[in-house]
Amino acid sequence: MTTLKKVRQRAEEDANAHSYRLNSDPDFLHALLQGLQKNEERYGYPSCPCRVASGELEFDRDIICPCDYRDPDIAEYGACYCTLYLRKEMTGKTIPQIPERRPLERQVLAYETRPEIQENRDPTLARNLKEHPATTRKLWCCRQCGYICFRENPPYTCPICKAKRKMFAELHARTFLEPFLK
Amino acid sequence: MTTLKKVRQRAEEDANAHSYRLNSDPDFLHALLQGLQKNEERYGYPSCPCRVASGELEFDRDIICPCDYRDPDIAEYGACYCTLYLRKEMTGKTIPQIPERRPLERQVLAYETRPEIQENRDPTLARNLKEHPATTRKLWCCRQCGYICFRENPPYTCPICKAKRKMFAELHARTFLEPFLK
Amino acid sequence: MTTLKKVRQRAEEDANAHSYRLNSDPDFLHALLQGLQKNEERYGYPSCPCRVASGELEFDRDIICPCDYRDPDIAEYGACYCTLYLRKEMTGKTIPQIPERRPLERQVLAYETRPEIQENRDPTLARNLKEHPATTRKLWCCRQCGYICFRENPPYTCPICKAKRKMFAELHARTFLEPFLK
Repeated sequence: MTTLKKVRQRAEEDANAHSYRLNSDPDFLHALLQGLQKNEERYGYPSCPCRVASGELEFDRDIICPCDYRDPDIAEYGACYCTLYLRKEMTGKTIPQIPERRPLERQVLAYETRPEIQENRDPTLARNLKEHPATTRKLWCCRQCGYICFRENPPYTCPICKAKRKMFAELHARTFLEPFLK
Repeated sequence: MTTLKKVRQRAEEDANAHSYRLNSDPDFLHALLQGLQKNEERYGYPSCPCRVASGELEFDRDIICPCDYRDPDIAEYGACYCTLYLRKEMTGKTIPQIPERRPLERQVLAYETRPEIQENRDPTLARNLKEHPATTRKLWCCRQCGYICFRENPPYTCPICKAKRKMFAELHARTFLEPFLK
Repeated sequence: MTTLKKVRQRAEEDANAHSYRLNSDPDFLHALLQGLQKNEERYGYPSCPCRVASGELEFDRDIICPCDYRDPDIAEYGACYCTLYLRKEMTGKTIPQIPERRPLERQVLAYETRPEIQENRDPTLARNLKEHPATTRKLWCCRQCGYICFRENPPYTCPICKAKRKMFAELHARTFLEPFLK
């Protein structure tokens, strides 16, 4: 089992690595970390404490903390959706309402298929989830630094060189297979 | 459009992540950041404010900030070519002249094909640029940590484990395709 | 040649990037850094100053500093096996004995084939080393963030999103080659 201490430590180290800060309200921070711990226990991965998970890892991938939306949210609003992570200048300041960046369709699908209602789950919905385009992954390559990842969409910023999403291009297997396909 | 504030923020966060500092002369720093912003507007990517870009992303890749040469320059001289990024001990100190690490051939090609003279651009030069060996990318793998990237040359140091360039080896597609090629 | 100053600098920058600290005993730290420098000179890579290396890069990969075991050791005990790297709260505290996480079989093989006894090396042992399953690498993919690496086993934590080892899955070449194999 992952202890609350380890959940906190992981969040602190990740905040430091990005020059972010954790929420400065100790009680609220405690509640968020407990939410992460609980989700990790329930699903096997620490999905966002402020969002509904479907329980299917491939579908929930984008909301596992640190979620795909954290970095663009902090860049634009100074805090992530949960306000777990803040830009350091925001410590102690009033944080604005952060709009939800996760596509509405994925929110709805996750809500309809969430494990809590699994008993009554419509099999069609479960199939929709498995076959959702969001779970179809491709190779992406950062044209600046060459970083490669295998995801449905490229990240908002390159984790290596911080290039923007638009700098990523799909890396077609053909590109590096050419010599072997003749 | 990328605001100057965001250009500064990105540079600060990247400096922190590497324990570097930004140039401590506020006016000079401002001029460098403006240069980055202007290049991003002109070319679509923040190429080095102190170098001539060709306007072709694939060819300019190595001089998009943070450029390929920053980390080896800081390791050797305490500052990058532009002196945008410094090793922290260099703050406030006199910075030596940093020699240009970009190969002369690439400097010349970029100069001859730069967009400012596009009207009079010799088509042969443009073709040279597109077919320049520097734009032919390969898969590289860090033999220490297994990091993979797709670039013309391996990075000077592994962004994951900090191994030196010589620890990278070309990752031949055959290596992981063997089972499928029989 | 890598100077002691550069070995120290690389360790300091890596410690900062992870919010770790270096050992706070200056003499002991000096001895560890000298060990790294000596190993880099001997083998061409800075293998762990507290472990026996085989001199075969592919086999020693896991004990090149920062070794594969550092992060899980610090997470569990607050320090790496060598006590070169510490969690910051451990600075100045008594550090417990850290158990060796490297598999015993690899320790034994490295010991039996170490270069210092190369003159008398049994050719069978050398072959065992080359053919050891630990040197057979695969593509691994982090199911959370899509990070890809080529190693014998996935890392203990994802260097990009900090997901745990169990979040990695083997990335079968077939997955991204499907369109080309028809």
